[in-house]
Amino acid sequence: MKHARFEDHDKESMDIFLDSVKDFADKDFYPYFREMDEQPAYYDDGKIITHPQVGITTKKSGELGLIGGIFDYDEGGLQIPHMVYTAAMTILEAANNHLPGYPGLTMGASELIVNFGNDHLKETYVPNMIAGQWAGTMCLTEPQAGSSLSDVASIASPTDEDYYKLKGQKIFISGGDHEHVDNFVHLLLARIEGAPAGIKGISLFVVPKKRPTADGRLESNDVLTAGDFQKMGQKGYCTTHLVFGENEDCRAWLVGEPNQGLKYMFKMMNGARIAVGRGGAAVTIAAYLASLQYAKERPQGRRVLNHGKKDPSQEQTLIINHADVRRMLLLQKAIAEGSLSLVLEASHLYDVEVAALDKTEKENSNLLLELLTPIVKTYPTEMGCVSIYNGVQVLGGYGFCSDFVLQQYYRDIRIFPIYEGTTGIQSIDLLGRKITMKGGAALKLLAAEMMSTIKDAQTHEELKPYAKVLDEKLQLSKQVLDFLLAFTQKGEFERYLSDATVFMDFLSTIVIGWQWLKMAVKAKQAIVTRQLTYPEAFYESKIHTMKFYFKYEMNKVNGLADTLMDENVLTIPAEKEVFVE
Amino acid sequence: MKHARFEDHDKESMDIFLDSVKDFADKDFYPYFREMDEQPAYYDDGKIITHPQVGITTKKSGELGLIGGIFDYDEGGLQIPHMVYTAAMTILEAANNHLPGYPGLTMGASELIVNFGNDHLKETYVPNMIAGQWAGTMCLTEPQAGSSLSDVASIASPTDEDYYKLKGQKIFISGGDHEHVDNFVHLLLARIEGAPAGIKGISLFVVPKKRPTADGRLESNDVLTAGDFQKMGQKGYCTTHLVFGENEDCRAWLVGEPNQGLKYMFKMMNGARIAVGRGGAAVTIAAYLASLQYAKERPQGRRVLNHGKKDPSQEQTLIINHADVRRMLLLQKAIAEGSLSLVLEASHLYDVEVAALDKTEKENSNLLLELLTPIVKTYPTEMGCVSIYNGVQVLGGYGFCSDFVLQQYYRDIRIFPIYEGTTGIQSIDLLGRKITMKGGAALKLLAAEMMSTIKDAQTHEELKPYAKVLDEKLQLSKQVLDFLLAFTQKGEFERYLSDATVFMDFLSTIVIGWQWLKMAVKAKQAIVTRQLTYPEAFYESKIHTMKFYFKYEMNKVNGLADTLMDENVLTIPAEKEVFVE
Repeated sequence: MKHARFEDHDKESMDIFLDSVKDFADKDFYPYFREMDEQPAYYDDGKIITHPQVGITTKKSGELGLIGGIFDYDEGGLQIPHMVYTAAMTILEAANNHLPGYPGLTMGASELIVNFGNDHLKETYVPNMIAGQWAGTMCLTEPQAGSSLSDVASIASPTDEDYYKLKGQKIFISGGDHEHVDNFVHLLLARIEGAPAGIKGISLFVVPKKRPTADGRLESNDVLTAGDFQKMGQKGYCTTHLVFGENEDCRAWLVGEPNQGLKYMFKMMNGARIAVGRGGAAVTIAAYLASLQYAKERPQGRRVLNHGKKDPSQEQTLIINHADVRRMLLLQKAIAEGSLSLVLEASHLYDVEVAALDKTEKENSNLLLELLTPIVKTYPTEMGCVSIYNGVQVLGGYGFCSDFVLQQYYRDIRIFPIYEGTTGIQSIDLLGRKITMKGGAALKLLAAEMMSTIKDAQTHEELKPYAKVLDEKLQLSKQVLDFLLAFTQKGEFERYLSDATVFMDFLSTIVIGWQWLKMAVKAKQAIVTRQLTYPEAFYESKIHTMKFYFKYEMNKVNGLADTLMDENVLTIPAEKEVFVE
Repeated sequence: MKHARFEDHDKESMDIFLDSVKDFADKDFYPYFREMDEQPAYYDDGKIITHPQVGITTKKSGELGLIGGIFDYDEGGLQIPHMVYTAAMTILEAANNHLPGYPGLTMGASELIVNFGNDHLKETYVPNMIAGQWAGTMCLTEPQAGSSLSDVASIASPTDEDYYKLKGQKIFISGGDHEHVDNFVHLLLARIEGAPAGIKGISLFVVPKKRPTADGRLESNDVLTAGDFQKMGQKGYCTTHLVFGENEDCRAWLVGEPNQGLKYMFKMMNGARIAVGRGGAAVTIAAYLASLQYAKERPQGRRVLNHGKKDPSQEQTLIINHADVRRMLLLQKAIAEGSLSLVLEASHLYDVEVAALDKTEKENSNLLLELLTPIVKTYPTEMGCVSIYNGVQVLGGYGFCSDFVLQQYYRDIRIFPIYEGTTGIQSIDLLGRKITMKGGAALKLLAAEMMSTIKDAQTHEELKPYAKVLDEKLQLSKQVLDFLLAFTQKGEFERYLSDATVFMDFLSTIVIGWQWLKMAVKAKQAIVTRQLTYPEAFYESKIHTMKFYFKYEMNKVNGLADTLMDENVLTIPAEKEVFVE
């Protein structure tokens, strides 16, 4: 490995690790996937009842290093590269997306304590969390505030001790309670009494469900479970409503400095956003493979012959031989593998940021990762929904039937564009913050990365036309941004951001085109140099899918640019009432 | 009314009719919508158990004229215009899409007997069907054949009597059995012993569940119910598996001539395809109104101020004031109302075809309707899914929760792009049959209709830019078709049809643009001439939504054209294996 941080690991040890994860997925995740949909988590008399695999897989995740594995050695970690961790979690999520969130959030919560907590908090909570004995959550959303974190109203009152007294309610808390671990450690946003309004007055706290006593017991910390939201998908992953301090006895320990909570939480949220993109990619891949298998087994109809008729005396063909079915499968594949590629790109940047010794390398990785994070969150989840929509269609009527799994993927995936900041919020983050930060430095880094791929592609005759297209789209993105940024110069920020989601669609389609061209370059290089780890057809398939992406997906970019550069303002509230029915 | 056929009806009588339908929807449909999702239809010991409203609404639909209402007086009908019938069914489907299929299919089945059955069949079945006492179905799909009707294998053997003996199985039979009507009349495709292979050997039969005896009893006709498919949505609308002739005692009566079954069935299927488009539009409208209501009531966050910050000391704003939420709502509205407009256009053509006395008018209406039918089936259902996808997103996390209705619409709508010939099949029908029929005559009629709207729009300054855009897209569609039709001249039919679904997306987006421009012209005329039936804001809202459609949807047409005119062939099976994982 390039960086000293990872020197104890090599490809062989990481392969063994991933093999054991695959084994874990096959034995403990996939067999329970349908069952967890049919037997949703539910609330019963103050308790959340979940599938027993929740406890089993959380603990085993701890044992396997899937919770604290990426942490430093001196924090109890294994210094596993984030990219390998991401590959591992993708395998688990593809097998059963109802389960990995439990250890995943425990990882995120313990990471926050490791990064920003004092030694007391680290010693008290982290070892049990990374062992999978205690579970962690992130508690942000409140009923009256939703995505608007500046309206968080939970109140922490100082005491003479080392803790605050907490009062408040949190909703949509994923994995927020169940009977299969000994304790829960909530990382919670609240406002210290008298703190400023808005996000500037938000602090981060550790709030255990049961507080550890000096003599090693766990005593109740006045955290009540008030309900579990029933949902159309991901039913095995509980979504809880928690009430803190109903009996004035909920203790909360401040993490880091007062009023810095949102800054800290963003550390976890960035990780969580990449994790949601990863989950979206994983479910999309699983659905693609399920559709592909069906299409390879189901006979129906006949190919159109070249006199324009079909021959009914012939045997039926497998549906994978119909052009329209192939189009849908290739679209599924292009989205699924393009998404995974982007998620792994982000993971790699994370690794470089953490491990690089060179300051510029560190900073650049951070900048590029910051820019890509909202795209990583959005493309695999939004387009994952499109991909699985097509996956259902491949099966025809059976796609809608409960006997087949596609309908479950279709329902499960729908939460991913909402989790951890909706697409609208990610898009405002992208256009409003990431594009403009440090004078557009991140965007320049991205453009340089793309140009490097374009240059590589130009060395292969077969890839030249696609290099040219990507170059054109990159220039177009500059034109679009020139048009949009003019609004910021005029102080018209609402107008600037009004089509942020369209811009997200625009830029992310180009970014995935870049990922595909990059994959095609690698595939072509492998073929040309005969450095084939897999059968040649595997590499050819990647090049074919890249061409498919450029023919069927990349073309939409120009229309989106036209929309973005249209002068008409139609979505900003004005005097005239628009919604008249 | 213009046509003599409808002379007994006027606007007032039709308004009264629609008011009574609205009342019916409010009392008998909407209150059971969530309940039918929570208590799905199911199979139990040879029976299908459905919600009691199935029987109540089927009978009352008969009484209201919703089954036989559009038929001729001398067939027991009321000669209600199809357009009014369509408006009525839209109201019912928006209220509860699990129920209207029951009377709807009874209508379609009785229409087939009325059109092609002999007097004996008409007398025996039609009166009870249009009264809603007996239910009708269409039995096409078989397990081994799916959408491939040339592989229908049910066998009808001649007897010395006036009936055939039937043996076979049918699956996915909507409304195929329940306990709330006295009898079922299946309109079924089967092959007479010794008939030619393929679709040329398919005949249409009436197969009652119980056969009426000479003395007025009903005796079993050996039609067994073998199961009910469980689905992710539309759970109250049963989807049955029927077995005919298991005990060699299933009698089937031929409708019309032998081996002409598919031709007859297409009569019903065309109606059914329009009905599915109508259903898609109706569910999409219902979901739009649900999202709109939520957005008008839910406070969250603040508008971006023009210095680019938000003021946390301000009260939260309603989410309808966020540009991105408005964009989603306007997209929902543009798709929903554009779809409904197209469905009503098709209904109007149906009326003209039936009622016109002039032969050319009749023929032209028929041709245009034939061309539009696959689009009417497809746009409201495919784009309805997109619309409701956005509708879920408007609610954020609550959109995914069972407490809110959006997730039910999201699940329910997903079957519509599959019903009555999937989108792939509709697209092949459009490009392979409808575009080319009679030397492209239908397409010329459509172009003439569009040109007429373009000319009308050009008389209003505000609409001129949109007239210009529609004109350009119309020219572009000719260019695309020139490119594609060249393949048919070279005999490359598989290539010609390989991107049929992309062509569907392309043409239907233009067609809905035409519908929106047409609505905008009407709205503008109403405003200019002060002929305002509704508040002026209603008309302004239509014009605004047209502009939205042209800015956000119409732009995708050029990208689709680029895809269609791309020379790369990527979806037709070739030597190289493409799907290598």
